[in-house]
Amino acid sequence: MTRLLESYAAGRWYTAPAEGRPLLDAGTGDEVARISSEGLDLREMTAYARTVGGPAIRALTFHERAGLLKAMAKHLSDPATGIKDELYELSYATGATKRDSWVDIDGGFGTVFGMASKGVRELPNDIVAIDGNLEQLGRGGSFVGQHVYTSRPGVAVQINAFNFPVWGMLEKLAPAFLAGLPSIVKPAAQTAYVTELAVRRIVEAGILPEGSLQLLCGSPAGLLDELTVQDSVAFTGSAHTAGLLRNHPQVLHGGVQLGVEADSLNCSVLGPDVTADDPELELFVKGVVTEMTVKAGQKCTAIRRAIVPAAMADAVVEAITDRLARVTVGDPRHEDTRMGALVSLDQREEVRKAIQSLRASGEVVYGDPDRIDLVDGDAERGAYLSPVLLRSQRGAVEPHDVEPFGPVSSVLTYDSVEEAVDLAARGRGSLVASVVTHDADVARRVVLGLAPWHGRILVLDRDDAAESTGHGSPLPMLVHGGPGRAGGGEELGGVRAVLHHMQRTALQASPAMTTAVTGRWTTGSPRREEGTHPFRKSLAELRIGDTIATPSRTVTLADIDHFAEFTGDTFYAHTDPEAAAANPLFGGIVAHGYLVVSLAAGLFVDPDPGPVLANFGVDNLRFLTPVKAGDAIAVTLTVKQITPRTSADYGEVRWDALVTNQHGEPVATYDVLTLVAKTLAG
Amino acid sequence: MTRLLESYAAGRWYTAPAEGRPLLDAGTGDEVARISSEGLDLREMTAYARTVGGPAIRALTFHERAGLLKAMAKHLSDPATGIKDELYELSYATGATKRDSWVDIDGGFGTVFGMASKGVRELPNDIVAIDGNLEQLGRGGSFVGQHVYTSRPGVAVQINAFNFPVWGMLEKLAPAFLAGLPSIVKPAAQTAYVTELAVRRIVEAGILPEGSLQLLCGSPAGLLDELTVQDSVAFTGSAHTAGLLRNHPQVLHGGVQLGVEADSLNCSVLGPDVTADDPELELFVKGVVTEMTVKAGQKCTAIRRAIVPAAMADAVVEAITDRLARVTVGDPRHEDTRMGALVSLDQREEVRKAIQSLRASGEVVYGDPDRIDLVDGDAERGAYLSPVLLRSQRGAVEPHDVEPFGPVSSVLTYDSVEEAVDLAARGRGSLVASVVTHDADVARRVVLGLAPWHGRILVLDRDDAAESTGHGSPLPMLVHGGPGRAGGGEELGGVRAVLHHMQRTALQASPAMTTAVTGRWTTGSPRREEGTHPFRKSLAELRIGDTIATPSRTVTLADIDHFAEFTGDTFYAHTDPEAAAANPLFGGIVAHGYLVVSLAAGLFVDPDPGPVLANFGVDNLRFLTPVKAGDAIAVTLTVKQITPRTSADYGEVRWDALVTNQHGEPVATYDVLTLVAKTLAG
Repeated sequence: MTRLLESYAAGRWYTAPAEGRPLLDAGTGDEVARISSEGLDLREMTAYARTVGGPAIRALTFHERAGLLKAMAKHLSDPATGIKDELYELSYATGATKRDSWVDIDGGFGTVFGMASKGVRELPNDIVAIDGNLEQLGRGGSFVGQHVYTSRPGVAVQINAFNFPVWGMLEKLAPAFLAGLPSIVKPAAQTAYVTELAVRRIVEAGILPEGSLQLLCGSPAGLLDELTVQDSVAFTGSAHTAGLLRNHPQVLHGGVQLGVEADSLNCSVLGPDVTADDPELELFVKGVVTEMTVKAGQKCTAIRRAIVPAAMADAVVEAITDRLARVTVGDPRHEDTRMGALVSLDQREEVRKAIQSLRASGEVVYGDPDRIDLVDGDAERGAYLSPVLLRSQRGAVEPHDVEPFGPVSSVLTYDSVEEAVDLAARGRGSLVASVVTHDADVARRVVLGLAPWHGRILVLDRDDAAESTGHGSPLPMLVHGGPGRAGGGEELGGVRAVLHHMQRTALQASPAMTTAVTGRWTTGSPRREEGTHPFRKSLAELRIGDTIATPSRTVTLADIDHFAEFTGDTFYAHTDPEAAAANPLFGGIVAHGYLVVSLAAGLFVDPDPGPVLANFGVDNLRFLTPVKAGDAIAVTLTVKQITPRTSADYGEVRWDALVTNQHGEPVATYDVLTLVAKTLAG
Repeated sequence: MTRLLESYAAGRWYTAPAEGRPLLDAGTGDEVARISSEGLDLREMTAYARTVGGPAIRALTFHERAGLLKAMAKHLSDPATGIKDELYELSYATGATKRDSWVDIDGGFGTVFGMASKGVRELPNDIVAIDGNLEQLGRGGSFVGQHVYTSRPGVAVQINAFNFPVWGMLEKLAPAFLAGLPSIVKPAAQTAYVTELAVRRIVEAGILPEGSLQLLCGSPAGLLDELTVQDSVAFTGSAHTAGLLRNHPQVLHGGVQLGVEADSLNCSVLGPDVTADDPELELFVKGVVTEMTVKAGQKCTAIRRAIVPAAMADAVVEAITDRLARVTVGDPRHEDTRMGALVSLDQREEVRKAIQSLRASGEVVYGDPDRIDLVDGDAERGAYLSPVLLRSQRGAVEPHDVEPFGPVSSVLTYDSVEEAVDLAARGRGSLVASVVTHDADVARRVVLGLAPWHGRILVLDRDDAAESTGHGSPLPMLVHGGPGRAGGGEELGGVRAVLHHMQRTALQASPAMTTAVTGRWTTGSPRREEGTHPFRKSLAELRIGDTIATPSRTVTLADIDHFAEFTGDTFYAHTDPEAAAANPLFGGIVAHGYLVVSLAAGLFVDPDPGPVLANFGVDNLRFLTPVKAGDAIAVTLTVKQITPRTSADYGEVRWDALVTNQHGEPVATYDVLTLVAKTLAG
């Protein structure tokens, strides 16, 4: 008898006191493992996540969490650990070829790297994230609004589909972890042995804080009953199961947040501009065949509907057929195999039924659902299925309703762009669509028509094909999810995925209190002026609010003249009194904006070598009041935000710069970005 | 018999062939109107919204939609139209005092003005909104990602609560309209006559396109059955009804998006730092009493739980009691009345029951639920109720569970900040909390503890009190909504509310195709260089992609020296070869960043008077490669975005600026913001 998969719960590996349900190798029918969660204490698991895992993660800043994720992904992908090889080897049992597993395993690690990188680059090195600009709520400036994101003291439950046992876990784990949430992973039974191995290696590595990752192998019955307001469930799977989850009392009335990614009837639209001579035809065909055959078509993003101009239908069908004929099916371990097995015989039966339904309004033009020649493998016990292409009748209903979760696609035809958009929309919401065209106008019309129905749209043509990551691949920096049938959820999308896990709150307060809560200096807050110029302070010494207020400098007409001549910026508003007088905004000669900020730097810079290493940028520069000859400008420069870089001996300091004139009017506001050493050089 | 309220459906006012249910004046018990939607064709209404209203709105840009909203709000609030007076007069029948109605009527108009203003300032003058930065998806730059928001071809249904018949409609209408969605308004029956009047005046004004606003007076039974993937329902009301809506098949399985604002047990926390001598004590007390009595406490944001340090409880109770004793109750039309009637006798009965439940763990310390002295009014037929303050026992459960939707609040005590946060959280998610403290550390701890449980938090102290808009007031620029018991929805929040109504899609394409779809020039797209300098083109003539590529200018050591001396920016990296050589980032003398951008302007500016009026700002300036003496820099300036201003004869042009050195390396990138005349001056 094979091994019983274990759950990782409340800090220990748990073996159910049961024989468990057998899980079979997709290609051979041999038993791989058994699974049972009998006796697992789900209340203890959720409590452990909330009291051990959550607090440990939330004790870290976003950047520290990102650092741990990166370290984890490095460990998993390091050839020296051998973990990748183990996972690839075990993954064959799911029916996946090596190429299929690359999407799952390397794709999963890449997603963690990608999310970690986004976390460092786009979140502060803090525990609170700022959303949007400060809102002035009172004329006097004593009452302001600032939206903030904070971590929920809850648990993130993930219920995954069988097709990506590694990627599916990691693409949910990474954003939740960045958001400060511990995860409980519930893999689909069919391929849970791969997830179990990955979790085991992550736990052994000891990189993530204990309690931040738990594993439930087996039935999750009762798990949702343990969840409450601050908890969330991220589900990937069928629309049917999604409906059941939406109907759970804790979702209906208990405030549990549910995100759904459901399989959808994704389409690829061939533009009306594409002729048989255009490279786009081959790109379209290749896309359809790839999506039919990678993971044997068991992907929620696969192309189920190929929507083509009626006049091109014969050519498209022929080209797809030609390519499909070269797809060799068989044991995924065999090197000549291009497409492996479906995950199980049950799954194959489901797909065969779906093909039968599609035949009501379409003709099978390639493949036999009941027969297949194998490169190698057990045709009796393995869940092999030939790729099947159908050509649907005009007005067919089934292709928009029936989802064959396997290597099956239907060709549909259209006469106008509007009809193409309408056909796509009949899928009632999908994860992704491709639009294959080299005509910018077609692209705009089709994309704007399809966008409300899709979470992602790929526009493919000769220009981007070489670098395109393809129709079926969610990327860590782009949202993954879609409206309607696709479940209405959103995952990934870089920082968006992190913020989805957090609570957005509108904070209304005085500027000083806003600074205290956000850890970021807010306009109107007290400024701290001391004897020491803040450029003389290291990152460790600088404090939010540290300020230098400079003496003023009078800007003369000679300065303006000279600057115009020196820089070559002889724009008439700076050089021609008569023409400048006619300018509706200035009414006379004004100083260059660039002169104002250059002089401002001259006022605030402390010249000697010290901790400030460089000014690497300026943000949100606005010129508010024109500076005329004779005006005297002064600068107030205040530390707004301090961001130590984990991987360098310096960090970023964002300064609030306010240039005023002799009347105290604001002349210019901007953020100055500098790099500052963490400590004073010896 | 009184008038039967009409519905506005498919372009006409509809009178039901029925007697209708009578609606009574809250203060007098007299019949005000009757209501029935019998025979109303809900399928026709939704189809009309989709085919007439939606396309008409979506033919407009965001700025044009904002302009119509502003014009509508102007019309409604213009004294010359008399509409405001009519609404105020009718509103008395709901039990509302003039001050209560100000929140509803002027507050509603202000919300439309606020949303319109946000729409112009924060959305492009286009139909597609951009979300976030461009993502480079391939090393070669031929494949990029850009998130976009597009309008859904659906209908926005709003199901409102009785307490704000005008504001409730307008705060949902404005964001939906900006997002390109037609609305169907379903007011609560009790006060539907006020909403009906407002909708009638809006329709008569003819400012919004026909079909963008429909009204359903009466039962909405069957309405959700007509909704599908692209439609949404925004519900405000009880948690019970919210649960029923979540359970509707079209929400569970049909992809209809549901947003919920439910009544919640909002709290105000008095900080442990506040003593009897601090002004914060009075601010706290005043806040509680205001929230108990405005709209007779019938507000989803009202303070139901006053959480105070145990040592301060007696003082707080006494102060609240003193203030409540000065609250005169009676006919809302009477000038001495400070608090009017509840909306109905049924509602009063509900509140009395809730008070009875609260008494299980608390003592009534002010007010008698069964007796009240009126300033004026009909004590028999009017739904009057005294304000009631309870003092809860330690460990009481009811205050966190039972919501008296009337002038009722409970005082709870705590010993530590942690306990205060824990008590607040026991409300299981609320719309808003107040934290009254003048201690920044207390503020940070309490706010970070409460934030995951709240959609809005007000920090109140002596510094912001004068300008504070108060605990109970949602503002157009701040999100309104809360997790858990509060429904999990989000409304308002400026542009956030608009984007909630739109679909976010990750677009993957070549830069050129991205430009075509978004209408905004994307890095990597073709640039159009012509004989004419783009500064010589009016807004009407400029096209996305118009480019000027300048000759190069060599930056000499003399330039750097001179600039340092002239501006006073003698930072060592520009002036001291030895010290500069030791800088880890530069390794030698470098030109000032401000010198680079100043010289760049000298290269790209076309000096003579023309359509370009001013450079009003710079965004996202990053210095990428240091410029050393002898380097030759050149600029490529390309039109990135064109935004005509509706209210001026010029518009904004955002230019992509790329400064390169003699090796073609990027030296600096930034956006230059200019104002450009719409036409060439004569």
